Amino acid sequence: MIRFNNDYNRGAHPAVLEALAQTNSESYGGYGIDPWCEKAAEEIRKYLDCPEAAVHFLVGGTQANFTVISAALRPYQSVISADTGHIHVHETGAVEHCGHKIHALPSRDGKITAAQIAAEAEKYCTSGVQEHITQPKLVYLSFTTEYGTLYSRQELEEISDVCRKYGMYLFIDGARLGYGLGSCMADVTLKDIARVSDAFYCGGTKCGALFGEAVVLTNPELQDHFRSHIKQNGGMLAKGWLLGLQFYVLFKDGLYFEITKKADEFAMQIKKAFEEKEIPFYIESFTNQQFVVLENSQMEKLAQKYVFEFEERLDDNHSCVRFCTSWSTTQEEIDALTADIRGLK
Amino acid sequence: MIRFNNDYNRGAHPAVLEALAQTNSESYGGYGIDPWCEKAAEEIRKYLDCPEAAVHFLVGGTQANFTVISAALRPYQSVISADTGHIHVHETGAVEHCGHKIHALPSRDGKITAAQIAAEAEKYCTSGVQEHITQPKLVYLSFTTEYGTLYSRQELEEISDVCRKYGMYLFIDGARLGYGLGSCMADVTLKDIARVSDAFYCGGTKCGALFGEAVVLTNPELQDHFRSHIKQNGGMLAKGWLLGLQFYVLFKDGLYFEITKKADEFAMQIKKAFEEKEIPFYIESFTNQQFVVLENSQMEKLAQKYVFEFEERLDDNHSCVRFCTSWSTTQEEIDALTADIRGLK
Amino acid sequence: MIRFNNDYNRGAHPAVLEALAQTNSESYGGYGIDPWCEKAAEEIRKYLDCPEAAVHFLVGGTQANFTVISAALRPYQSVISADTGHIHVHETGAVEHCGHKIHALPSRDGKITAAQIAAEAEKYCTSGVQEHITQPKLVYLSFTTEYGTLYSRQELEEISDVCRKYGMYLFIDGARLGYGLGSCMADVTLKDIARVSDAFYCGGTKCGALFGEAVVLTNPELQDHFRSHIKQNGGMLAKGWLLGLQFYVLFKDGLYFEITKKADEFAMQIKKAFEEKEIPFYIESFTNQQFVVLENSQMEKLAQKYVFEFEERLDDNHSCVRFCTSWSTTQEEIDALTADIRGLK
Amino acid sequence: MIRFNNDYNRGAHPAVLEALAQTNSESYGGYGIDPWCEKAAEEIRKYLDCPEAAVHFLVGGTQANFTVISAALRPYQSVISADTGHIHVHETGAVEHCGHKIHALPSRDGKITAAQIAAEAEKYCTSGVQEHITQPKLVYLSFTTEYGTLYSRQELEEISDVCRKYGMYLFIDGARLGYGLGSCMADVTLKDIARVSDAFYCGGTKCGALFGEAVVLTNPELQDHFRSHIKQNGGMLAKGWLLGLQFYVLFKDGLYFEITKKADEFAMQIKKAFEEKEIPFYIESFTNQQFVVLENSQMEKLAQKYVFEFEERLDDNHSCVRFCTSWSTTQEEIDALTADIRGLK
Repeated sequence: MIRFNNDYNRGAHPAVLEALAQTNSESYGGYGIDPWCEKAAEEIRKYLDCPEAAVHFLVGGTQANFTVISAALRPYQSVISADTGHIHVHETGAVEHCGHKIHALPSRDGKITAAQIAAEAEKYCTSGVQEHITQPKLVYLSFTTEYGTLYSRQELEEISDVCRKYGMYLFIDGARLGYGLGSCMADVTLKDIARVSDAFYCGGTKCGALFGEAVVLTNPELQDHFRSHIKQNGGMLAKGWLLGLQFYVLFKDGLYFEITKKADEFAMQIKKAFEEKEIPFYIESFTNQQFVVLENSQMEKLAQKYVFEFEERLDDNHSCVRFCTSWSTTQEEIDALTADIRGLK
Repeated sequence: MIRFNNDYNRGAHPAVLEALAQTNSESYGGYGIDPWCEKAAEEIRKYLDCPEAAVHFLVGGTQANFTVISAALRPYQSVISADTGHIHVHETGAVEHCGHKIHALPSRDGKITAAQIAAEAEKYCTSGVQEHITQPKLVYLSFTTEYGTLYSRQELEEISDVCRKYGMYLFIDGARLGYGLGSCMADVTLKDIARVSDAFYCGGTKCGALFGEAVVLTNPELQDHFRSHIKQNGGMLAKGWLLGLQFYVLFKDGLYFEITKKADEFAMQIKKAFEEKEIPFYIESFTNQQFVVLENSQMEKLAQKYVFEFEERLDDNHSCVRFCTSWSTTQEEIDALTADIRGLK
Repeated sequence: MIRFNNDYNRGAHPAVLEALAQTNSESYGGYGIDPWCEKAAEEIRKYLDCPEAAVHFLVGGTQANFTVISAALRPYQSVISADTGHIHVHETGAVEHCGHKIHALPSRDGKITAAQIAAEAEKYCTSGVQEHITQPKLVYLSFTTEYGTLYSRQELEEISDVCRKYGMYLFIDGARLGYGLGSCMADVTLKDIARVSDAFYCGGTKCGALFGEAVVLTNPELQDHFRSHIKQNGGMLAKGWLLGLQFYVLFKDGLYFEITKKADEFAMQIKKAFEEKEIPFYIESFTNQQFVVLENSQMEKLAQKYVFEFEERLDDNHSCVRFCTSWSTTQEEIDALTADIRGLK
Repeated sequence: MIRFNNDYNRGAHPAVLEALAQTNSESYGGYGIDPWCEKAAEEIRKYLDCPEAAVHFLVGGTQANFTVISAALRPYQSVISADTGHIHVHETGAVEHCGHKIHALPSRDGKITAAQIAAEAEKYCTSGVQEHITQPKLVYLSFTTEYGTLYSRQELEEISDVCRKYGMYLFIDGARLGYGLGSCMADVTLKDIARVSDAFYCGGTKCGALFGEAVVLTNPELQDHFRSHIKQNGGMLAKGWLLGLQFYVLFKDGLYFEITKKADEFAMQIKKAFEEKEIPFYIESFTNQQFVVLENSQMEKLAQKYVFEFEERLDDNHSCVRFCTSWSTTQEEIDALTADIRGLK
């Protein structure tokens, strides 16, 4: 079986693993106070235009999301998110567990608009009973979204403008940031991401690392005592250099961008195969996740050789499924899959 | 100015106040361990068919809501509510502050259906990733709803059946319970409320008391250490007998039901006046809250003599407003208002 | 039976009750936005030297404590308290429930010293692992303490200096503030309390009101969105004017100070009776709470006519018990008790 | 510089790293649903006498502690711990952040006794105001303790008996479990640990793994929806097999026990060197952590070649410091250190 079900089903990029092996018998200071974390932060900062950005390395995405969000908010403040946002639908209510309401704005393709956000913020501002409602203070976006779609630079700038107008933080979940930046349709760079947002993270888990998310806090307001928040929330790895080292390897010579771009290209080969077959997309994506609408017989046929993710039954005869490429996908795997797609009845 | 803006703008029913005055120099045990709380609980239980029901007296509605909900749930569990539910829209995120997500189901008139609830519960049951999502474990209804509408006995029974099928608790917010039971369109009694639900409360604040909500826990599972939950959440009044005494006076001879029924009848007089004038209702209600769509000029005219609640601007020329009667409304106030409604241009 | 067990076993001072009766049929705006709350705040501010102080009326003490504390702190911050402090021993862990650790400093008489506080703050400041420990950010004192003892003006100023030096807030629980200020041994005024602290409250529940605590936030940093915190924590009374009105009556002509001073004087009569009898004090107090060490036979004898609070069994033959006077205690009650004390064998 | 400052300053045991390398290009299911987690759980269960034990793999110790504790407790329940316990002193208040109070019992050597625990539990049981205090429901022990000391089998059995008598859970923090079991003074086995407790974990981070803690829930009451708790608290690793694989390698042939025992033996060589030099111990330990009282000059001398952990300044001329061995310590490192100890003036 070949797994296209997600982008976290294999270990780490060989260069990452090799670095871990080479340093395995070295000894380091604990809890992220070590040279590798420092060097990794420096490498990441090179891609930004924000020398004052604080970089912290956390283990996983859910952890990164609720740690940033709960550190940023006061108890009466809340989060604006697409109703498809990972924090709203797949994190076991971790944000609410930290005490904060999510304003889930309707979205079909995983994106929300500046206008939607402004309307929600305006509702609070013009409310006559502000103490009876929560104050939206942070906007959560995913880049790429959970459906593989992308915000354009203009969309991000508009959203950023709304956030600044209403005094809200913009936080970008970059679990799949590499795949977003690497897309043939992307018109934003890491510098743009840093410029428009107050906080974001570069996902490692899905983009070549064994695990790890590099949280970048560009807004100094969010930097205060952040290590205390990490520790209290269980996100401070004792052997923190394992995180720093991985990100150093991924960012030093741009490996992070190279391997995710390649995965996007592989995904485009899958996309093309489905298009040629006139199999419809549930949502059109130009990144490593492809959501297609398969007939039951097609689904069963492909399931004989491939693992892909079942999303939703659409009607008696059709379902939405996801095919996912990653930094570990090979041309051979793509060739096999695209041939089998073309061979579908 | 005559206030029709809400049902909590005056003190207490004279009988309640008199009882407070008469006992003012008596001394009692603290924190709800006193004869009045005991007697009040007994009086309330007479209306139920549930001798094992536990009755606790809390000060306010928001407090009652989050105390019951957070006592009932484990951290990974969540609440199903109408998106118009008070806990979702007017309690500053108190339920989320206690750590729990709300599944807000769409509703126009304040009500949700058994089918909606079942669909939401089913989503969890059939999910392949249960540990990534919260488990809906409690259904929150308001009776009357925030729009003055009523669930019928059949609707409540259907919802109750769904709750039992999926192992969920049914909790009924009865801040306006009296006005619900007293409506000319109601086909349920307090006995029905107790039978279909696992917990509910009889609102005092809006129904004749100075303050206070009588929480009734019919399901023994919810009774364990409930006083600890009350205390921890700041809801345990030192002079608890003040609550017990008020509810004793209200329930002993059915005063609670009598005064709220009267308020409903007053509301029907207002309703009739608007109907005669062909002023449309935002939502049709047969209880003490009347939501009408007024033209700007009508709104300005009435605002000269009456305080009513502005709800929402509907278009350039129309707004939704609420007129509210209560146990303290008088026939004279109604006569004045209905005459002025009839006199509108 | 005559109750000396606590200072909250009777209703309200007659003047308070009368005011409630006189305004009972008036109608007011909800949630503390009404003329009585405004006027009461003004009256209280007259006793301070702090025109910018914000005054909020909450229902009870536990609620006031955790609402102020959780509003003041960030998640990684903690509270310094005597290990006898009410928040540490009698509030069902409400502060921890809000997410904050309490540093419980050893105390025998309910008081802690500036030196103890400074040492605890210094521990954090000099720690090499700050992100692994919580930051003490608020000092909680009770005035009078849970043992009826008093801080002198000098002690309060020293503590205040330590707090300012280490950037910590000073919060004074004034559930029994009146009894503290009214003591023959007190050398502080309400003005001093306001000057040395960042927040405090004037207890109503134990000092003449039916219920209610007037929270005074002298430090503007603590004032932001405080009404949102109150509402979210269930402390916002719908009929807020009931609180404002009571405090207006109590503070307008100094009634608050007069009735608590009287109760202190009554307590001194009890104290004298025990002294004459050479019955030892568990802790010497010059306020309305008297803690004495009784022999079992003495305890049994007095228990035939009086309700008092059992505190602790000290040995096979002795126990610590509390006698409490209040605004509602009468000279007749005192005469009876002191006679019976003198008659003990 | 040779690091003796802690037991987490190097990567992983070579066998662990090799296993990671060998499986790096294999693909697996996510979130701990994979063959390695299953096999590792099986291997661990072989050491227990508890076939129904649930085994979950979390990333770190703080996370494991608060996840187990908050999953086990209801909001009004609390934890008993030594005042030296890791959860009380070095986890940034994570347990309180989850809403639970810690009863910190005095301890000099890191241990608490069955009698201390029983007394604390008894206080709750005999309290007349149970709803005003929290209910101690879980006892937290560390094995080895934070000072390297050990509970004997008899001590554990006595504590376990007290826990069962009072209906409390016993949870053992096994971050250094291997070093405890491997001590020449230990008289307990993993089977004993499982028998006396309701939950415990086998630390990986400090005992040969790159990271990871294997939480074992022997009491079925604690097993319900535990994966939901893990996910909500950010402890569910996407590539969960990385944890399973490491524990499989460590437990399959007893490597875990072998390498920690070796580290204990190394520590005994250090202990002997200090003893010969008549340098006093702060606390006597027979495990991998050695706490000694050094003169300033001795400390400075050793600090030229070795990194060790400064604990506490004892007086002008003496400090308590910690020397720590681990699975990665070599005989050469020990020889160098012991020679230098012997060479101290």
